[in-house]
Amino acid sequence: MREDEIDTPALVIDLDAFEYNLDRMAALLAPTGAKLRAHAKTHKSPIIALQQIARGAVGQCVQKVAEAEILAWGGVKDILVSNEVVGGAKLARLVALARIAKVAVCVDDPAQIVAIEAAAEAAGARISVLVEIDIGASRCGVQPGPEAVTLAKQIAASKHLIFGGLQAYQGSAQHRRGVEERRKLIDHAIDGSRRTVEQLRQQGLACPIVGGGGTGTFEIEASSGVYTEIQAGSYAFMDADYARNLDAGGSPVSTFRHSLFVLATVMSAPRHGLAVLDAGHKAVSIDSGMPTLWQRPDIRYVSASDEHGKLEYGPETSAVKLGEKLRLIPGHCDPTVDRFDWYVGVRGGRVECLWPVAARGGLN
Amino acid sequence: MREDEIDTPALVIDLDAFEYNLDRMAALLAPTGAKLRAHAKTHKSPIIALQQIARGAVGQCVQKVAEAEILAWGGVKDILVSNEVVGGAKLARLVALARIAKVAVCVDDPAQIVAIEAAAEAAGARISVLVEIDIGASRCGVQPGPEAVTLAKQIAASKHLIFGGLQAYQGSAQHRRGVEERRKLIDHAIDGSRRTVEQLRQQGLACPIVGGGGTGTFEIEASSGVYTEIQAGSYAFMDADYARNLDAGGSPVSTFRHSLFVLATVMSAPRHGLAVLDAGHKAVSIDSGMPTLWQRPDIRYVSASDEHGKLEYGPETSAVKLGEKLRLIPGHCDPTVDRFDWYVGVRGGRVECLWPVAARGGLN
Repeated sequence: MREDEIDTPALVIDLDAFEYNLDRMAALLAPTGAKLRAHAKTHKSPIIALQQIARGAVGQCVQKVAEAEILAWGGVKDILVSNEVVGGAKLARLVALARIAKVAVCVDDPAQIVAIEAAAEAAGARISVLVEIDIGASRCGVQPGPEAVTLAKQIAASKHLIFGGLQAYQGSAQHRRGVEERRKLIDHAIDGSRRTVEQLRQQGLACPIVGGGGTGTFEIEASSGVYTEIQAGSYAFMDADYARNLDAGGSPVSTFRHSLFVLATVMSAPRHGLAVLDAGHKAVSIDSGMPTLWQRPDIRYVSASDEHGKLEYGPETSAVKLGEKLRLIPGHCDPTVDRFDWYVGVRGGRVECLWPVAARGGLN
Repeated sequence: MREDEIDTPALVIDLDAFEYNLDRMAALLAPTGAKLRAHAKTHKSPIIALQQIARGAVGQCVQKVAEAEILAWGGVKDILVSNEVVGGAKLARLVALARIAKVAVCVDDPAQIVAIEAAAEAAGARISVLVEIDIGASRCGVQPGPEAVTLAKQIAASKHLIFGGLQAYQGSAQHRRGVEERRKLIDHAIDGSRRTVEQLRQQGLACPIVGGGGTGTFEIEASSGVYTEIQAGSYAFMDADYARNLDAGGSPVSTFRHSLFVLATVMSAPRHGLAVLDAGHKAVSIDSGMPTLWQRPDIRYVSASDEHGKLEYGPETSAVKLGEKLRLIPGHCDPTVDRFDWYVGVRGGRVECLWPVAARGGLN
């Protein structure tokens, strides 16, 4: 089947660009002290996870227990829930996974350590627990330094828990446009992490993992000498928002290629200059801005309703035609992937594979 | 099971409020000349559709063939795709449904009429086709008047098609805050529709349906003497965005009750004034603004990331606690429903039913 025969809207992966991105990340991290633990909240697919691991990733991150379950049963052996898991039902599911995979989870409150210890004891399991520190994003996490050390000691003293290290992701730095802005925020994150690692060492606690770093900043964390694991996810696909980040020369960052697209069809073309696609915000996420058109900078996706995407273009562009298929670059890849049941993998204009978005809707 | 035992994030319907809304709409439309054809893009559920039909709705609207399929096989006998359907594969599926339900679809281009006629002929089916007119939303649709009449004549002259009427939905009027703003836009829509109906009549073409009207404006269309069918969907649930519309007295419109919620758990409470919920924008849509908290105006949902919702509150509010469950009123109900596989119906604080979001992700 040719790409232009795919019914729309469809989530399309350009397999050549995708594999380029996986290889490129592996090559960039190889000379650093850091390993990749790619974030599966982006792709929600054991098939993709295993390709990342085959290229050297130590395992995967997830945000939800439901994602951890799909990956573990799909063959991933080392999974970090880079997030807090609250509630007895979820914790029972999490510790049950320890039978088939190495599982770790984050905490930022003493009560959570007590709850995870109880769940692990009930399951006869041992799991690794990381302390999340707030190194500038002001979301979850305790402050670096003594607060983190106190939690680490509580974990280490819990019979069924292993102190796994620090979760130190700076999400709000990832999309700052200028390289200096990003560096300043990550330097602050590195300082807080280094200080906490040092204080842990003074208390006799080794810190096996310091995890963080996203697609926008991972090169800074990876070369820090402090971070041991990089949690980038979007690098495999790229999106329109990450493509607005600038490099040191002020040009758009070109480290990775766009490999993920929403293929859409023109369902209405009422007059020259206006066309409507069959992909609105139920098909392509707009939380980080509108999608852009692949290799068609002359056409703008100006607004999305539930099921319609409105395109505008100037008089110099030849008419966009009813039935024409166009590739959108999603504004934000993670939630866009979560809108679809399947990836359609294409190479050289032909469909090569269908991969399920296996953990789609795995909110719990 | 009690509501506070539901694992989160979960999509919860307050069944008393939901049934109140269905009854209220039926009562409001009864004295008018218009019937309800409720929009299933909101609820994506044959179970809910059948409850609307039991209260007098003539059928359902959908935006996608996939939704029409789920409803038709779920027992709904009269379905209008209130949208253009482009491409041979989709049209073949659409006309196949004519065997089990009355099916209609919209067009705004002569080429679409040719394509639908060909699909209907191939299937040995007859289906109803409406002409979409652009009465101010500037999206799909031809201009009211002669352009619409030309398409209607082409439909009527097609052997396997029946001219079904006019699709005249003014989406951009629904969320204007002031009642006078909404009335002005809908008066314009009514004028364009009336003029087109009159011109059709002069050409000997009856116009069985004039369809449009959403939750924000339906009372104006219903009493117009021109619109015959109302396509409201959100009224069954309400959302935070519709709750910002004002009535003639300048108060928030109180016609319907909030019946749809995302139940979420506090997964981190790092300090007084800040808490983080386990429901970010993968669980609750933010395209029409952030969700609000049910009966807790002292707490604000200030920002969403993929899997986190950040709450802020003042010193006078007692501490939001780790593990606490809170109800969110979605900013926009339609895309929020599409994030979940199940509705959890509650009454009097107890779970009464689970209804599948059967057409979830039905994008094609």
